[in-house]
Amino acid sequence: MGLLAAGIGAGIVAVGAGIGIGMIGRSSVESIARQPEASGDIRGAMILTAALIEGVALIGAIVCILLALGIGQ
Amino acid sequence: MGLLAAGIGAGIVAVGAGIGIGMIGRSSVESIARQPEASGDIRGAMILTAALIEGVALIGAIVCILLALGIGQ
Amino acid sequence: MGLLAAGIGAGIVAVGAGIGIGMIGRSSVESIARQPEASGDIRGAMILTAALIEGVALIGAIVCILLALGIGQ
Amino acid sequence: MGLLAAGIGAGIVAVGAGIGIGMIGRSSVESIARQPEASGDIRGAMILTAALIEGVALIGAIVCILLALGIGQ
Amino acid sequence: MGLLAAGIGAGIVAVGAGIGIGMIGRSSVESIARQPEASGDIRGAMILTAALIEGVALIGAIVCILLALGIGQ
Repeated sequence: MGLLAAGIGAGIVAVGAGIGIGMIGRSSVESIARQPEASGDIRGAMILTAALIEGVALIGAIVCILLALGIGQ
Repeated sequence: MGLLAAGIGAGIVAVGAGIGIGMIGRSSVESIARQPEASGDIRGAMILTAALIEGVALIGAIVCILLALGIGQ
Repeated sequence: MGLLAAGIGAGIVAVGAGIGIGMIGRSSVESIARQPEASGDIRGAMILTAALIEGVALIGAIVCILLALGIGQ
Repeated sequence: MGLLAAGIGAGIVAVGAGIGIGMIGRSSVESIARQPEASGDIRGAMILTAALIEGVALIGAIVCILLALGIGQ
Repeated sequence: MGLLAAGIGAGIVAVGAGIGIGMIGRSSVESIARQPEASGDIRGAMILTAALIEGVALIGAIVCILLALGIGQ
């Protein structure tokens, strides 16, 4: 049961991080293309929000690794 | 049963945080591109709302870690 | 059964808070970009509505922690 | 069974409040950006409708706490 | 079974009230922004329709509380 959870969970984590960071990255490159002189501010906002998503996703991935290794069973 | 819940729950948490922070980050970089001189105010609003989502998501992740480690069973 | 509920519930809570606060944050940064001189009023409305969502989400998270720790079983 | 209901119910309550108050907050900040001089009326309408949603959501959360603690079983 | 119904039902009630009152609140603040001099009429229509949704939602919530407390079983 834990193995099933690890696999499904890791997949859903990747979907969440993918959609979220994908939306940020997409708009970032479009915005830099429109205002190249603001690329420093854009890159700062991009890194900050993407890092917040990455933080939650890594914790979700760690939960899945715990499950896959059978720790806590 | 707790293991299945931990995996799936961690995944759904990441989806929620991803979509939410993704929407904020996406609009932030577009807004900075449109009004580079307002980037300070934009960054303040961005960090505040993203931190609120991050707070709920981390609590959800802690619930999943509790479940994965079998605490409370 | 309570464990399954805790995991899935924590995930759905995060989705709700993510979508809701994400919509608010998204429009806030866009509005500040359009009317930088109204950023005080915008920030006030943003914090108030985001705090209302955060309140419901935290109560939902507390329910999930109660379930994960087996209190009330 | 009541535990499963508490977890899933708390999650769905948060989704409802998140979407509803999120829509209100989103339009409020956009409206304040468009008509900064009407921000008093806009804030009044925003607080009234958000409070109505918050009221239903809190009652839903109380139902979930009753279920999680096993009151009435 | 009544407990499961109470939890899920309370959640769906909150979703319904959230979406409904959210749509009303959203359009109300946008309308006040477009026609600030009509804010009295707009507020009257807003309160009336939101109160109708609130009435149905509270009755649904009372049904869920009855189920959670096991009255009528």
